[in-house]
This record gives sequence, structure tokens and C-alpha cells, in this order.
Amino acid sequence: MAIHHFQPTHYHTAIGSHPPVLHIASGDTVVTTTVDAAGKDTTNTAVTPRGNPQTGPFYIDGTDPGDTLVVVLDRITPNRSVGFTRSVVAPNVVDPAFVRELPDRGLVDWRVDNKSGTATLLEEGTRLGGLTIPLAPMLGCFGVAPSKGQAISTETSAEHGGNMDYRGFIAGVTVFFPVFVPGALLHVGDGHATQGDGEIVGTGIEISMEVQFTVRLIKAKRIRWPRGENDKYIFTVGNARPLDQAVQHATTEMLRWLGEDYGLDTVSASILLGQCVEYDLGNIFDPAYTMVCKLPKVLLPTPETIEGS
Amino acid sequence: MAIHHFQPTHYHTAIGSHPPVLHIASGDTVVTTTVDAAGKDTTNTAVTPRGNPQTGPFYIDGTDPGDTLVVVLDRITPNRSVGFTRSVVAPNVVDPAFVRELPDRGLVDWRVDNKSGTATLLEEGTRLGGLTIPLAPMLGCFGVAPSKGQAISTETSAEHGGNMDYRGFIAGVTVFFPVFVPGALLHVGDGHATQGDGEIVGTGIEISMEVQFTVRLIKAKRIRWPRGENDKYIFTVGNARPLDQAVQHATTEMLRWLGEDYGLDTVSASILLGQCVEYDLGNIFDPAYTMVCKLPKVLLPTPETIEGS
Amino acid sequence: MAIHHFQPTHYHTAIGSHPPVLHIASGDTVVTTTVDAAGKDTTNTAVTPRGNPQTGPFYIDGTDPGDTLVVVLDRITPNRSVGFTRSVVAPNVVDPAFVRELPDRGLVDWRVDNKSGTATLLEEGTRLGGLTIPLAPMLGCFGVAPSKGQAISTETSAEHGGNMDYRGFIAGVTVFFPVFVPGALLHVGDGHATQGDGEIVGTGIEISMEVQFTVRLIKAKRIRWPRGENDKYIFTVGNARPLDQAVQHATTEMLRWLGEDYGLDTVSASILLGQCVEYDLGNIFDPAYTMVCKLPKVLLPTPETIEGS
Amino acid sequence: MAIHHFQPTHYHTAIGSHPPVLHIASGDTVVTTTVDAAGKDTTNTAVTPRGNPQTGPFYIDGTDPGDTLVVVLDRITPNRSVGFTRSVVAPNVVDPAFVRELPDRGLVDWRVDNKSGTATLLEEGTRLGGLTIPLAPMLGCFGVAPSKGQAISTETSAEHGGNMDYRGFIAGVTVFFPVFVPGALLHVGDGHATQGDGEIVGTGIEISMEVQFTVRLIKAKRIRWPRGENDKYIFTVGNARPLDQAVQHATTEMLRWLGEDYGLDTVSASILLGQCVEYDLGNIFDPAYTMVCKLPKVLLPTPETIEGS
Repeated sequence: MAIHHFQPTHYHTAIGSHPPVLHIASGDTVVTTTVDAAGKDTTNTAVTPRGNPQTGPFYIDGTDPGDTLVVVLDRITPNRSVGFTRSVVAPNVVDPAFVRELPDRGLVDWRVDNKSGTATLLEEGTRLGGLTIPLAPMLGCFGVAPSKGQAISTETSAEHGGNMDYRGFIAGVTVFFPVFVPGALLHVGDGHATQGDGEIVGTGIEISMEVQFTVRLIKAKRIRWPRGENDKYIFTVGNARPLDQAVQHATTEMLRWLGEDYGLDTVSASILLGQCVEYDLGNIFDPAYTMVCKLPKVLLPTPETIEGS
Repeated sequence: MAIHHFQPTHYHTAIGSHPPVLHIASGDTVVTTTVDAAGKDTTNTAVTPRGNPQTGPFYIDGTDPGDTLVVVLDRITPNRSVGFTRSVVAPNVVDPAFVRELPDRGLVDWRVDNKSGTATLLEEGTRLGGLTIPLAPMLGCFGVAPSKGQAISTETSAEHGGNMDYRGFIAGVTVFFPVFVPGALLHVGDGHATQGDGEIVGTGIEISMEVQFTVRLIKAKRIRWPRGENDKYIFTVGNARPLDQAVQHATTEMLRWLGEDYGLDTVSASILLGQCVEYDLGNIFDPAYTMVCKLPKVLLPTPETIEGS
Repeated sequence: MAIHHFQPTHYHTAIGSHPPVLHIASGDTVVTTTVDAAGKDTTNTAVTPRGNPQTGPFYIDGTDPGDTLVVVLDRITPNRSVGFTRSVVAPNVVDPAFVRELPDRGLVDWRVDNKSGTATLLEEGTRLGGLTIPLAPMLGCFGVAPSKGQAISTETSAEHGGNMDYRGFIAGVTVFFPVFVPGALLHVGDGHATQGDGEIVGTGIEISMEVQFTVRLIKAKRIRWPRGENDKYIFTVGNARPLDQAVQHATTEMLRWLGEDYGLDTVSASILLGQCVEYDLGNIFDPAYTMVCKLPKVLLPTPETIEGS
Repeated sequence: MAIHHFQPTHYHTAIGSHPPVLHIASGDTVVTTTVDAAGKDTTNTAVTPRGNPQTGPFYIDGTDPGDTLVVVLDRITPNRSVGFTRSVVAPNVVDPAFVRELPDRGLVDWRVDNKSGTATLLEEGTRLGGLTIPLAPMLGCFGVAPSKGQAISTETSAEHGGNMDYRGFIAGVTVFFPVFVPGALLHVGDGHATQGDGEIVGTGIEISMEVQFTVRLIKAKRIRWPRGENDKYIFTVGNARPLDQAVQHATTEMLRWLGEDYGLDTVSASILLGQCVEYDLGNIFDPAYTMVCKLPKVLLPTPETIEGS
């Protein structure tokens, strides 16, 4: 149950079996920082090449392939006052013939204010004036080392997590990752002060963060795709193209979860999901798109229900 | 501003330029009924072949191709006490290799109670017991006659609307359709007492309905895809496979809308959508999938903002 | 075994249950003409609105839903000397970000010479000079009336055929269509003097044609997707988006065919297809894409093989 | 122009920046061996874990990121007499609802005879008898180390090549790879004695090989996707899901190639490709699908044509 304060000195733009920066134990908490997607730190200084550089990896002692790593996102706080976004929707989110109507424009800056909990557009010359929106700080890219000696670019995502760019990964959320290598090798990075569904401009409000997380271990529990839990929902994450396949991965993983942990056979789970499931669009920008399959916790069977049926 | 009470005597399973059942005027209200997806009416009696049979079409006088038809869904009320759903998720929403694990099971019934506003599973022998969930009555399939003499199956959807199976089409919502033929020729049907995102079992709680709607006309306003508005959001609807293309249609339509009606050039609209857009998954079961692109109304520019920028 | 000479006076841009222009019998041959995609006839005069206008429909006497219609394409001959193509690849066949590099350019003309069997580019000012390529006349869009009272735009394709834009539909090929309505209601149109795979500029060399075809009937034989046969191959056609789904339709239909008509169980058919199947890309331009699954006839089991195993 | 005989002692199931096994020069030839997809060698003995194990990597001296590596496949010869295939088409190549009809069956063996140039099915109990088909030995998986420190699983493919499973990669073909790391780091493996389009059962006839290849370097020539050339065609390779995106990558790369090396502006290249392009389906089984865009060399402009236009 130790608390580790870790200040990174180097970063990775592929998630893989890199030498760990720290060994921690199940139950431990880490307080660390992440640079923004462009490799800039709390002083807005470029300290590493761009591309969602990751802090870590953290080696969780006693973790083996086939376990599940539990990561509680305790706190995600912007640690500087300016973030940036792209200013034009990505070509792949509009009709192909409409791409010609997309101007070629650069980045815009936002003032990020933790006290008021808002971000304010700093760009002059748009029709938006000083648009001010609520902060909802999240991690765009984080995950564990993949199997088979792979090192997967932080541009994309897969079973190991990675660049899912899902606005639901905010403080308070618990995330479950399948473990592929000894120690799991957790990487974290790519903070967004907020983000719309789909990350359709290719960025959230990109900013460096102070991040605190706590890890836990479930031994010999094999999951296939990242899972999560917040106050209201349990959810599963599918990463793939097209979105259809991301839905397939997430839905299949939810069916497995409901079967294994909640005693719901496929028919029972289907009846429940059919009328009550919700889906969130993580990203439709990165090489792999992300869809999230959610079920309200209030609908989950209690032990009594399971016994009584 | 007349109110028409219309009792259908026949139905259509393709949306097209059928002879109109009623001529109405802009501003008029229609109170009518719809049979369920299987062609069963308020007495649960089969009165027409299955396949989302449509009531109508209604001819809106003075409507020409290139106009926009506005349909306010005033009321959608189940008019019998039993609905049905399928009981297994559709093969196309799970990983292909997982399809083998899907049992081949039939329909299950639900008791639908307007007074308590709930639906209760009537099936014995599941792990769900007497699962009771809130009603949220909606129309799964409705739309206007398409262009070029087409008659489009009520199994699918396109620019004209059709079988979008989006849970957001509930009472209180305003829907905008492009008009392709004189009179628009509005069809309505396929009521669901409630439905999860995606309609992943291939049904909502299918039930006959009493439906009241009011039409209005916007002359010489050309839209490309269905649009909508509720208390909190404006939204656009894209229908296609894969989901990626449905997202493209809906997002492009939203960019057009923000440009034409709210004075937002593409960059301004992109900046706003990038951090604030939301997407809903309509259906991922029908031949064309449905994605909905939403923007909170509170973020829309007011005339002052537009002038001031 | 009559030969009918039919000169069309009107055309359809949706394939549906239109009044037949001619009743013919199984075994009969029809000699007729088709206008080009733009509605222009043998004199290059516009005689009907654009959009792959169809000649027909032809009612084949004695044909019922659940039968298979066999259409032998006896002859497809350009009947004028100038055709046209688009001059820029379609936005949907290049990377989304590359669309901005596509110029907005119009049509180019080609001289079509049946004697030499060639088409020659007439456009000045390209880097191609007077590019001359072989003719391979084909039908881009043809098919039978679909089910359920549908009328399907000639822009797209489905189980009934339609705008498949497959370069394999040349003279000498036999095509099999599922029959959905009494009389089958065969439509033909959209001749191309030649076309590349995928129809990636959105056109072949569009030209009016003289077309001769012979029909035959297989009673009570239900197929799901168009099938075909030429000297070397049997093939099946899948129409859908994305291409992945078109492959699924075509492959599934081939497995059914090999099972029903050649006695190959799924494992035997899989082993054979796995190492010997070929696929052609029909179109990747239209609303539904087309993939063709082919098996060399030389590999088909003979009755002896079937008995002997 | 040295000839290197290299006998591998270890293999990789991810293509990445592993320590090179051999340094070679531009112009050199390598004669080596590959194990089959299951890790079995010329004696059919498992010598390394399964999953398309790769021989190499080979470091080509003087090669830098931004160069193009040219690999001539001189010879690909099965070096044992038995190969294997799967016996059921993959779930993702048939309609989702049809998956339930796919039996769960294992591998089948084939006798591979280099003298007669044939493979003969050894399985009893199918309807195929002793099916004998021609050999067409190819490499399923080969490529160069990717950028950014990635190590990409040999199950999949991307810009660096990898598991493309394209039956066109036979002896006599020249392949061009973009270079991402110093030395390029060429890997080769996954030989198939033959394979159908699409690798729809998930295997070709998997077998160990003797492979001879010759490398060459084009300095400071940046390509984006693998390219190739054989006697009749130049071709480009796109790897992605869905197939639509693979087509986009391959077509865009072909447009770039025709522009850079053959002087064809986008309009000229479009006109030519529109009527003359061909596509091959590489694989529709692996995580990334493969489509190949081909143009007959006879249609390529000669220098005279380019000057004269």
C-alpha cells in the first residue's frame, strides 16, 4: 500500500516490454506526470519526441500472464494552464467527397483552469468567441505490454489498451487489463483536459498531467479486452476497424463478463443487453477505432437473483 | 391546424410512392395507430404480413421535393399490454468465432404497463427473474418516400429515414426529413416500448402503438439526412454500413447544419464538435446501421455570439 | 425458342415491379438496345433522364418466386462510336487525406471501334496521348425485380443484381438470378465498352449497346445471390458495403452452391476453396460494393468423384 | 554481389528491431531456410513456437530510413514433402448467421512434390478424393522492421509488409519496401506451397522452405506501402481492415508511383487506372486484410509518350 512518487526522465512511443522504471506491488499507488501528445511537459517544453509519449512502464510485482491488472485512476489533473487541439475534423469522419471542403488549418490553444474547472478557447477569428467548456480530464493512451514481444505504437490500440481516446477514462474509474507479460508493464500518457466523443478532430485538449493511480491484481483471471467500472456502469472496450468490429469485440467481452462473474447465460445476458445496453464511441480517428459497451450496474443481478432463478 | 384521427386498414413493408391514405396540411396533427413489427395490432392479432408494416403514407399538401418536412412526435403510447423481443444477440454484433456459442432461441414476451411506465419480462427459466425496466416508447421505422421511384424495404434505412431503430425517437422529439416527392408521403410504424442502443438482439420490445404526430413544412430548405431536436440536443442521423460510414454521413450533415443555420464555418464547427460532440449508436442490426451525431443546444451560438465574432 | 426484337421507348432508374414491356418464354431470345448511363442512345441523344436507365422489364412466363432465372448474355455490342468516362478516381477509393489532391475534372470521350475491337482516348492534354485499349463490352447494371414491392435504385445492387459494375459480365457468360416476383421482371442496361476492376473512376466507357440475351428457367430452385458461369469458372456475386461483407455473401453463396449441386460438404468445399478460390473486385464505387467468388470448373467434382468418395 | 548461405538458429514472431543475424550489402544474395507457420522445419520437427516465425533479420549495410529496399524473390522451394492446411473456412469470410453451419475441424495434410510441381490432399473421408493441384510456392509473411521502435506481430501486416498472405509473392517477383530503421532489417518466413485468394481457411499449404533472395537499395526514395513488380504488372499493396481501406492504401500508393516514376498526373493516372486497373485479394483472414492494385506494364508510358504529350 505504498505511495510512490515517480518523475519520468524518458518516454516511449510504443507500448512494449521496455525496461521498467519502477517496481510496485499490488495495492500500491503511484503519483507521476505525463507529457502531452506532442512531448511537452508541465512547462510546455518539448522533452521527448511527439506521438503520445508514455510514462513508465511500471512493473507490478507478482504479476504473470493470464492475470488481470486492475488500475484505479485516482486523479488526473492538468499541470499547466495551456492545452491545444486541432481545428479541423479529420478526413475520415466526413463523407469522402466532403473532404475537399475541409480547410488545412493548424492547432488552436485553450486556457485550462483547474480552479474554475473550465477550458477557454484562446483562438481569435473563429465564430466561437471565447468558448468556455467544462474540464473532464482523461487519459487518451495507456495500457500494458502486449504479447509475443510486440511493441505497439501509441498511435493505435488493441487488446492491451493503448490509444483508445475514450472520454470515459476519467478520475474515479477502475480499468481492468489483461496481462500478457510478467509484471504487466503499465504505461500511462496522452492526457486530455476534455474531449468529445470520437476525438473527431484528432485531439482532445492535449495537455501535460499529474496522474495518480492505484494498482491491484487479480491472479489467474484471464480477460480478453480492457474492461472498466465507474459509479453507474460496468463497461468493456473493443479496439479495431471498422467500428463494427470494435462493437463485436466489446459486446463479446461483455457477454463473457456477464457469464463468468454474474452468472448470466448467453440468453439471459442477451435479453438484458438487448433492451438496456448502451454504447459509447471512444475514438474514430486513430488506426484502431474504439467502441465501449456499457451496462448500468443497477441492472446487474444480485446474488439473490442469481440463486433465485 | 386540424387534428385527424386515422385508423389504418392496410400497411406497407416498403417505403415508397404508394397512394396516400390521407391528405393533411402543414400544422396538422394526426392521431393514428401502428401495428407491431410482426403485423399484429392492439388485440395482438396479425392483420398484415410481418416486417415493420407502415401506417400511411400521409400526403402533406403543398410539399415539394427540396423542402424539409418537420415531424413532431407528440405521443407514442403502447396500446396493448404484451410486447416481445428476441432472446439472443445477433450474429453480426459478436466476434465471428463467438457465433458458434450463440444458442438458437425464439422470442420472449414482456408485460407492458403504461401506468407504472415499466416492462416486465414474462419468460420463465432465465437468470433474470421478473426483470422490470422503464418504458421509453419510440418509433423504430418511419420516414418519407425516397427519390427516383424507389420503394425501400422497411428492413433498412437511408436518406429518407426508414428502419433506423434509434432509441432517441421518443415523444417530444422533432424530426426533420428531406422531401423527395410531392406530398413527402410520410410513413410511420415499428413501435418499441423500449430498446437498448444498437438493437443488438434485432428487436426492441415490439408492440403496437397509438401515435400522435404534428407536421410542419420548411419550404425550399434542402437537407440530406434526417435531423432531429429534443430539449437538450440537436442531432443528425447517418444510415449506412459500416458504422464508419454512418458516422461520416451524420458528421457531414452536422457540419452543414452548423454552417447553414448557425453561421459556423468549418473550422469553428470543427473546434466546437471536436471537444463537445456526442454520438449515439442507433442500430447495428439492420442492413444499414445508424449513428447519430449530437450537439448540446447550450453550446449553439446565439445571434449575439454570431454577430459579435 | 422465339427471337424477339424489342425497341424500348421508356426506361427505369429503379429496378422494380414495373409493368412489363414484353412477355417471353423460357428458351426465348431477346435482341434489344440499351441507352448509356446518361440516358443517351445510339445517336448520342438524351432520350431519358440519367442514372443507368434500364430497358425492360421483361416478363418470363411461368416464372414464380423461388425459381432461378438463367440469363445467357449472347451479345453486347456498342452501337455508336463514342463513349465517355470520368477522369478522376472517386474520393472513396483513396486515403481520406489524399482526397484533397484529387482535382475536380469532368468527363473524357473515347472513340469506340468495334472492327478493331479497341477504344481510343480522345482527350487532348493528358500524359496518355491517344491511349488505345481493347474493348471488352459488358453490362454494368441488370437484374430482376426485388421482393416485398421494393424498387431499388439503379445506382446500387443487392440480391436481385442491379448496379454490380463487374467487368466479368461480358458476352458468353451465363448469369443466374433468384426470382422474387412472378415473371422475374428482367431489366438490362448500363453498358460499358470496357471497365477496370472496381470501376474506380465511377464509370466504365459508358456507351449505348445492342444487347442479345436468352433466358431459361429453373423451377423451384432457390438461390440467394446472383451466380454465373463462363468457360473457365463458376462464380457467385456478393453486393454490400464494406467489401468484407460482399466477400461474405459471395463466399457463403459459393459454399451453398458446392453443397447443393456438387455434393461437397462444408469441409470438402472449404479445403478446395481454401487453396483454389479466386476473387474479383466488381465495383468499389457504388453504394453497394461487389465482390465475386470464383472457382475454376476444372476443379469441380465430376459425378465419378462424387460417387467414388 | 556475394552469396550468403545462412542457416537460422532462432526465429521471431514479431517483426521489429531485433539484433541482426547477418550483415549483407546491396546486390548480395542470401540462401536460407524458413520454418512453417507452426514452427516446424525441413524435418517436420518443431524448432520454435508457432505463429509464422521469421528468419532474420538481415541488416543491409548502408540502408537508412527514407530509402527503399528492393528484394528479388529468386527462389522459394518447399524443402520437405508434407504441408498442412486448415479444413474449414474462417468465420469472418461467411455471413455471420452461416457461422453456425461451419463444423469445428482440424488440419489436413498434403503431399508436396517439387518434381511434379503438385500438391495432393492426403486426407481420407472428404468428397475430394486425392485432389491434386499445382504448386505455386510463395511467402506469406515477410517485411522490414517498422518505425518508432514498434515490433509488429507476424499475425498481421502494415506499411512494413508482414503477414500479407498474398499469393502473388512467388519466385521471380521484385518487392519494394519502405525503410524505417538503419539496415532495414529484413525478415522472411511463412512459406505456402500454394494458396487461394484471400487465404480464406486461414492457411495456404503451410510448409518449410528454402528461400533465395537478392537485395538492392534505392537511396533517398521514400515509398509508403510495399510495392512489387513481375513480368506483366507493377503493383502496390495495402494492408488494413476493412478491405475498403486496404483498397484505399493500395490505390493511393499506385497514384503516387505513377506520378513520381512515370510522369502521370492524377487525371492521366485516373483515366488509365479507371479502365485498366486490376485488384487481387491478398488475405481476408488476418487482423489486417490485404488488397493489391495492379497495372499491366504494357500500359505504362514509355519515355517517348511522356515527352510527346
